[in-house]
Amino acid sequence: MITKEKLKKLIDTAAGRINADTVIRGGTIADIYGCRLIQGDIALSDGLIAGIGDYKGDTIIDADGMYILPGFIDSHIHIESSHLSPEEFGRILTPCGTTSVIADPHEIVNVCGLAGFDYMIRAAKETALDIKFMLPSCVPATKWEHSGAVINAKDMEPEILRENVLGLGEFMDYPGVVGAFDTVLDKILVAKKAGKIIDGHSPGLDNKALSAYIAAGITTDHECSTVSEMLDRIERGAFVLIRQGSTCHDLRKLIKGITPENSRRCLLCSDDRHPKTIFEEGHIDAHLRICVEEGLDPMTAIRMATLNIAECYRLYDRGAIAPGLRADLAFVDNLRDFHVQKTMINGILAAEKGRYLLPVRRCDDRVVRGSFRVKDFSLKKLELPLESENVYVIDLHPGSIVTGKAKAKVKRDNNGLFVYDPALDIVKIAVVERHQNTGNVAKALIRGYGIKSGAVAISIAHDSHNIITLGVNDADMHRAVEQLIEQGGGIVLVKDGSVLEQIPMPLGGIMSDQSGEWLYKKLNAAHETAQKELGVNTLIDPFMSLCFMSLPVIPELKITDMGLFDVEQFDFIPLEVS
Amino acid sequence: MITKEKLKKLIDTAAGRINADTVIRGGTIADIYGCRLIQGDIALSDGLIAGIGDYKGDTIIDADGMYILPGFIDSHIHIESSHLSPEEFGRILTPCGTTSVIADPHEIVNVCGLAGFDYMIRAAKETALDIKFMLPSCVPATKWEHSGAVINAKDMEPEILRENVLGLGEFMDYPGVVGAFDTVLDKILVAKKAGKIIDGHSPGLDNKALSAYIAAGITTDHECSTVSEMLDRIERGAFVLIRQGSTCHDLRKLIKGITPENSRRCLLCSDDRHPKTIFEEGHIDAHLRICVEEGLDPMTAIRMATLNIAECYRLYDRGAIAPGLRADLAFVDNLRDFHVQKTMINGILAAEKGRYLLPVRRCDDRVVRGSFRVKDFSLKKLELPLESENVYVIDLHPGSIVTGKAKAKVKRDNNGLFVYDPALDIVKIAVVERHQNTGNVAKALIRGYGIKSGAVAISIAHDSHNIITLGVNDADMHRAVEQLIEQGGGIVLVKDGSVLEQIPMPLGGIMSDQSGEWLYKKLNAAHETAQKELGVNTLIDPFMSLCFMSLPVIPELKITDMGLFDVEQFDFIPLEVS
Repeated sequence: MITKEKLKKLIDTAAGRINADTVIRGGTIADIYGCRLIQGDIALSDGLIAGIGDYKGDTIIDADGMYILPGFIDSHIHIESSHLSPEEFGRILTPCGTTSVIADPHEIVNVCGLAGFDYMIRAAKETALDIKFMLPSCVPATKWEHSGAVINAKDMEPEILRENVLGLGEFMDYPGVVGAFDTVLDKILVAKKAGKIIDGHSPGLDNKALSAYIAAGITTDHECSTVSEMLDRIERGAFVLIRQGSTCHDLRKLIKGITPENSRRCLLCSDDRHPKTIFEEGHIDAHLRICVEEGLDPMTAIRMATLNIAECYRLYDRGAIAPGLRADLAFVDNLRDFHVQKTMINGILAAEKGRYLLPVRRCDDRVVRGSFRVKDFSLKKLELPLESENVYVIDLHPGSIVTGKAKAKVKRDNNGLFVYDPALDIVKIAVVERHQNTGNVAKALIRGYGIKSGAVAISIAHDSHNIITLGVNDADMHRAVEQLIEQGGGIVLVKDGSVLEQIPMPLGGIMSDQSGEWLYKKLNAAHETAQKELGVNTLIDPFMSLCFMSLPVIPELKITDMGLFDVEQFDFIPLEVS
Repeated sequence: MITKEKLKKLIDTAAGRINADTVIRGGTIADIYGCRLIQGDIALSDGLIAGIGDYKGDTIIDADGMYILPGFIDSHIHIESSHLSPEEFGRILTPCGTTSVIADPHEIVNVCGLAGFDYMIRAAKETALDIKFMLPSCVPATKWEHSGAVINAKDMEPEILRENVLGLGEFMDYPGVVGAFDTVLDKILVAKKAGKIIDGHSPGLDNKALSAYIAAGITTDHECSTVSEMLDRIERGAFVLIRQGSTCHDLRKLIKGITPENSRRCLLCSDDRHPKTIFEEGHIDAHLRICVEEGLDPMTAIRMATLNIAECYRLYDRGAIAPGLRADLAFVDNLRDFHVQKTMINGILAAEKGRYLLPVRRCDDRVVRGSFRVKDFSLKKLELPLESENVYVIDLHPGSIVTGKAKAKVKRDNNGLFVYDPALDIVKIAVVERHQNTGNVAKALIRGYGIKSGAVAISIAHDSHNIITLGVNDADMHRAVEQLIEQGGGIVLVKDGSVLEQIPMPLGGIMSDQSGEWLYKKLNAAHETAQKELGVNTLIDPFMSLCFMSLPVIPELKITDMGLFDVEQFDFIPLEVS
């Protein structure tokens, strides 16, 4: 809370009795409330806006004719999807004009529990980007896999009261909400007791089920892919977070559902964002560009990245450029291209012309390292004995996280063990449990990945982030997994016993401790190697397609550390066709 | 907070697994988020909306083809301006479709202190209307008069945390805010510490002074009388409460300043509302009628009485018709006339066809009775000795609370005491201090009231509510004041020693304990008596014009218990011209 001295100074500055700390001159200012453009000096005091008008300041910042907008807010993002630490994530997002994000760290919390949550909050303090958090609500995500933590309602009670925690994260267990399950009610009541909101995740819900979900107290949704779904949710009072990320691209379609009346209930978000997307396209600035391309009025679009988000998430100190609000500002060239020239956060110039200006600091991250607890992993555990050649296979669909369930005939060796047949695009996939020392290694078969040599191992596997490996022979798969464990997680490519690529992600096994530029280069190289050296299908992303093979809530056939999971039947099934 | 059982029941109801408590059928429902009209049953569970669709219920309410709107909210009202208890106020407002009001009880608090605040909160519980409170911020209003209480920042700290207290009431001491006075900063920090908002009152402020006022943390303003003032405030982030009350009528003028972009920052309010206005015109329903007459889109208008207010005041449980929100509903005939047929509050039908349906209860109000502490009032204290015939007079302006300062020559008797001259429309006015036993009786002269016989005494005198009396002779004035004290305050008319009219207002001396209908009749009769029997100028309201004669912040010349106050000079002046 502001001190009395700073409050007095703010008022004295606004009233013109004393010089402002800083005056920003020469820009065209967006009045977000009236959707007008105004001229004037912006006077700042201790990181807050004192007033707009004719002011004197100790420091003058020249806006060079730029348009000055409120800093952009990403209403929903999983920082871990960038595979970078929060400090690094902040460093590369800030030049895009982003000044706040609302992050749901369920990935790291699934791995490291509340110690991971605490790490994210501590790390967030080290970067200028103002990172707010939602407390992950569904850890573990399902009971069909082993994860690193279990967080129940009682665990949530103290955490949700933390400063900078805005509420409960996306409530993915929507059947539990609609069904009013007991433990789900306990969690919802934690949020209600704290007076905080609950993010939603309700793909496919409509009619009474959707009403039940929202009646329970869910305030938002980011899973709309059609205008009809969007309008259903708006009508029921949920804010719609229009998602444009690295994986899902709903913005252009959903813009068609925005009206002058309902636009105040629409917000922009990423959900996920890879370094490639950030470096090659940008962030919310890119979303605004798309909005205007699609014919949306610029001010309406800007509100979806500022005021509307501040209102939804009850961030009363930001979202516009006005007296008393935080001096979070994005300076852009025009309201079509949104090329960000400067980013100011809390009155400090944090980025200019694509570069972060402030010292990069890192917090103590030891608590999220060393997160691999794998018991007795061995070559033998990868063996796949089959009674017959008739098996179910997971059918990969390029560009989708939905898989198919199919039957196939495969080759076996003299001992009845599965062997890779180069004539078929079917390989072994295994999930190695790595949180609870269970020693579990589940195996299945996957078609369409394309790999012809070697193996891939990755510890980014939603939502539990166990180890996924696949390959054409057990030795390479084994080598890849061993390397992965040794480096603390990430991505490994192996061919003929040699490690071709290794991208360590020692923070929880899902985030690198290196720079965004380093990771971007390494991912590009590994992508190329996977395709050129291992022969992975060029129509798919070699790593992103694997990340979702363990997600037992997305149809149709998935593999977790506990076995082959049929999502339609909602149960494990044998690999073999009986 | 909702219990687990009720949460489960709400979800079960929304999902259609169990019958709703109540289903409202056959209405056309306003979707406030999309500004659309939709059809469907409204299913209720324990006073909340579960869903809209095809539902079954234990009780069916037939909406008879009515339009169903969210219940109307008055964003700013002084209940004491109705001169009725909160319970009675609720009873007569509810049939107008009003389901919530936000009340600033600074009148009763000026008289009775925090005991008065507590009384209002207790009384509010006895009526269906959901009355929220703002904690009066400026008690006493000024230092130029004696009032019944002094409330400083320390006193406010526990009070502002009370449930149903939404923040600090209108911060009338705007010079103190703009000047960053120490005690003002303390009060503002009380609100900030509690995370609650501050209502504003900033007539005439603009430019840097207005920025300073809002930078301090003031969220709203209801004193705009021009579009230019309105746009100044919207631009700076303050919500504009467009006032249409018994005294001030800004709505038709300010509608012209509403745009599709800024309408979300505009709210409807009354500020004050007399029984006459309520019975003859209505409440927010009347405001909506005016909006549509003036060409505003009905949905935009309705939002200004519902969603926008809920957002501004952070009432997340109301403001629209959607799952999880309170079942506060107004059933109207059409979206032009807004004739309210039914009012539902928290799922209960509270009014129908102009009648309140529920039992009328009253709380224990003893703490606000017996509020007159007048020391040594005597006939002699009304004597006005003058050294010469040259005096300043307060010039009444019909229809305005602004007065003029003029010089005049008056008659004196042989002892040099002022006497009434029927040839001049100048009479004695006195303020008798009645809170702190000071014995103060200040006297001045007023022109334009028109009275030709008898005297009037009234204890509604903004903001301290001391006794104001005026008349053509001291004996009648003395009689009127004595009667007023004996009946516990209100209004008294005396002629030739007889009490012609008495309207007791024993609650704080400013509110009747009778019904609205009774008070309405009595006020009409007293109005007529004042004009016919006492000869009061028919161009003025005999009582309302007196209520503001003690208000030392409205120019030009006023009288408080401490003397004749020159507002421009901002000091007391002698009665006699030197």
